[in-house]
Amino acid sequence: MDSQQFKEFGKAAVEFIAEYNDTVRERDVLPSVEPGYLLSLLPENAPEEPQDWQSVFKDFKDTIIPGLTAWQSPQFHGFFPCGSSYPSIVGSLLTDGLGTICLTWASGPVSTELEIVTLNWLGKMIGLPEEFLNSSLGTGGGVIHSSASEAVFVCLLAAKEKTLRRLKQDPDFNEDQAKLKLVAYTSEQCNSAIEKAGVLGSMKMRLLKSDSDGRLRGETLKKAIQEDKEKGLIPCYVVATLGTTGTCAFDPLEELGPICQEESIWLHVDAAYAGAAFICPEYKYLMDGVSYADSYSFNAHKWLLTNISVSPTWVKNDIDFLNTFDVQRVYLDDINSETKIPDFRHWQLPLGRRFRALKLWLVLKIYGAKGLREHIRNQVSLAQYFAHLVRKDKRFVVDPEPSMGLVCIRLAEGDDLTKTLLDNLIAKRKVFMVTAFSGSKVIIRVAIGSRFTNKSDIEVTWNLIKAEADILFGESPKDI
Amino acid sequence: MDSQQFKEFGKAAVEFIAEYNDTVRERDVLPSVEPGYLLSLLPENAPEEPQDWQSVFKDFKDTIIPGLTAWQSPQFHGFFPCGSSYPSIVGSLLTDGLGTICLTWASGPVSTELEIVTLNWLGKMIGLPEEFLNSSLGTGGGVIHSSASEAVFVCLLAAKEKTLRRLKQDPDFNEDQAKLKLVAYTSEQCNSAIEKAGVLGSMKMRLLKSDSDGRLRGETLKKAIQEDKEKGLIPCYVVATLGTTGTCAFDPLEELGPICQEESIWLHVDAAYAGAAFICPEYKYLMDGVSYADSYSFNAHKWLLTNISVSPTWVKNDIDFLNTFDVQRVYLDDINSETKIPDFRHWQLPLGRRFRALKLWLVLKIYGAKGLREHIRNQVSLAQYFAHLVRKDKRFVVDPEPSMGLVCIRLAEGDDLTKTLLDNLIAKRKVFMVTAFSGSKVIIRVAIGSRFTNKSDIEVTWNLIKAEADILFGESPKDI
Repeated sequence: MDSQQFKEFGKAAVEFIAEYNDTVRERDVLPSVEPGYLLSLLPENAPEEPQDWQSVFKDFKDTIIPGLTAWQSPQFHGFFPCGSSYPSIVGSLLTDGLGTICLTWASGPVSTELEIVTLNWLGKMIGLPEEFLNSSLGTGGGVIHSSASEAVFVCLLAAKEKTLRRLKQDPDFNEDQAKLKLVAYTSEQCNSAIEKAGVLGSMKMRLLKSDSDGRLRGETLKKAIQEDKEKGLIPCYVVATLGTTGTCAFDPLEELGPICQEESIWLHVDAAYAGAAFICPEYKYLMDGVSYADSYSFNAHKWLLTNISVSPTWVKNDIDFLNTFDVQRVYLDDINSETKIPDFRHWQLPLGRRFRALKLWLVLKIYGAKGLREHIRNQVSLAQYFAHLVRKDKRFVVDPEPSMGLVCIRLAEGDDLTKTLLDNLIAKRKVFMVTAFSGSKVIIRVAIGSRFTNKSDIEVTWNLIKAEADILFGESPKDI
Repeated sequence: MDSQQFKEFGKAAVEFIAEYNDTVRERDVLPSVEPGYLLSLLPENAPEEPQDWQSVFKDFKDTIIPGLTAWQSPQFHGFFPCGSSYPSIVGSLLTDGLGTICLTWASGPVSTELEIVTLNWLGKMIGLPEEFLNSSLGTGGGVIHSSASEAVFVCLLAAKEKTLRRLKQDPDFNEDQAKLKLVAYTSEQCNSAIEKAGVLGSMKMRLLKSDSDGRLRGETLKKAIQEDKEKGLIPCYVVATLGTTGTCAFDPLEELGPICQEESIWLHVDAAYAGAAFICPEYKYLMDGVSYADSYSFNAHKWLLTNISVSPTWVKNDIDFLNTFDVQRVYLDDINSETKIPDFRHWQLPLGRRFRALKLWLVLKIYGAKGLREHIRNQVSLAQYFAHLVRKDKRFVVDPEPSMGLVCIRLAEGDDLTKTLLDNLIAKRKVFMVTAFSGSKVIIRVAIGSRFTNKSDIEVTWNLIKAEADILFGESPKDI
């Protein structure tokens, strides 16, 4: 494919994307395919001869598109939103078009430096303390990890390394035995990625009981640490969540932080979804106590209009990363080794990665801080509007209170009916949601996330739910 | 930004990318910037007001482009190539435009299934044994990891889990103590990612001495295992490299494989760079013995014209991944849980990821198997041509023999001069290469990798090197 054909194909793809997004609310959210549909459609071997882009593009429309779940549809309410926006799409396109990899500073000075700049911008926007920012004075800084999973795991390893280094000062210290005694703590409400980090890093991860609002309280943590210390274990790492996956609950950092400080435990804050909201002053109180944290991450690719994979992660002391990951090779010697510019390959799992800061930069500039705040506020108000509609129907309970763009609902009559309602809804493929628990009760999570969502979309979702409830209860349609 | 503005910006970006790539050989390979250049150019805070795309695009050209290292330039010979091609760029664009995340099967049926299809296609193209492919009969299959680092680490964890499960059959087994005794082996020539996997997974990674050709031999491995067993350690994991980073040497799988089999050690094959070449029948002999492997990975984003991040990884027994990573949550319950379709979130580190199979599918279809073989063969022949030019100059030694697209050269007069030559060359920013060792000798690695490279580009590179050598030796220019 030469550059002329690329221009034709590329522009046709741009047209397609615009049209797909313009019409996404008319599509079924869930595709009408059964497991294995594509396996039976496509040939068993790659084509031997080159195919022209026009026929491949037709195949794309005929075979790929029908198997797609429409994450950008206003009726997609599953999980948390999948960040996307036009500036981000073009940013990603430019990244691919430049065909560069971030490795050492010299392998792409602008990749390293734009990551510093955008993460400083973003860190200030969400109100992180100065110590987390990259400056010529301090030891803090941000890096773009590929996922919250990577962030939580990388920080777990740094916590392990730091704890062992501290304990080594004792002449009787046995490193191997100490490794077996390290313990990490998080809430039972944590994302699976946090539990997985414990598996990956061979560290016992205790899932502590949350309170009735889904929050991990200081007292609970304190008690668990005390128990473990009495057993001779070594508390090492705490992951607090700001915006849990189940119900978007916020662990109180002001309770957890002082305990971690006192016990010399690394505190990581996982704000994967809700972290984006802290660009609005009115939500910043939810991160009170963040100054106790050693590291902090959120996914710009969830709620900040940026395509996956952009998980900004900040650390107060980059030495903790360097001590953990620095594996040298002569071919990676860098002309930058004398400066204060970070060498991000020591801050992450892979050696090389995409130039991801570019799309984030485009999003920050084209929306502006103001535009991004408007986006968050609009989505929160749509969630409130949805909760308002639900509350008018006595068959439903909003439980717990809506938090950010997430509204959790259930049928007053109980778990089985709630589950049946969701199954029936999903079977029709027009909306998508998933279940979770509020306390011991089954709830349906309705996450508002598409950037296209407006008030009438919210009404469409509610009417679909209500109509399904009518069928379930054998009633005639109710007024909203 | 609405869809109309997106169409304008997107198409302008497509035009820019075509023009950038068409003229990339006229650009300096290394940018003329000093560390910190961008930090002083950009403001300290994100803009408050939205900016229009035209002015942002201008900023992109004025501030981002000047800080770019031109990985796609035919005069970029550093590291290994950074895969890129027009079909891949459009594939990635479509992925972003659809705005989807791969999580469960239901969250994107086509994402999961296209990954199965393309990895079966690719597995067959490179000649992997049937057992590695996804079929309704066996337990094998492929997954797209984000990097060779992830692949090597994930397989290390699976090896650990599998070994511990086997040992658990002994009633006196102490899991905690056993974990401390696990050992992994690889060659001293391994990529830093392999050593890092040992750090990440808390497993001792022994870097064994390679032979004079840079290969890890069976005898060396056997001896190391014997030593460790005598010390009461538990050999667990071997990583063999096909195409080492330093000199593109190939570990002999036929020697290492039977030893791993006999000792019940997991054998992972890391063919990060050279793996792409196995689509050509004439190179398949270099992977003889691959049937002994438990897992196999390579980076399509190096030499297979696919943009980062696409590291296909195959495993013979998916149960080994599932046992390692399965961390359940109610909100991740999937309607697919009864079928044979793999749930890739249990095969990898992150929970969600990009729909990466799409660009790979476009590359495979638009180039066809034939076109991809032509690409590999063309690059190997260009490397041979470069070696031929170097050999005519008695001041230079080609050492070792060229392997795939990599030619390593040094000055006969010794290491210091070789290093000085490279420093002087790089200072002029017209070519980029890095050093490595052949045995104890410093060499300059000249990796041929841009898809644009032709014979005259090779001559340009050689003439630049030769002219620099002339200056170094105080000689007048020599004939080629």
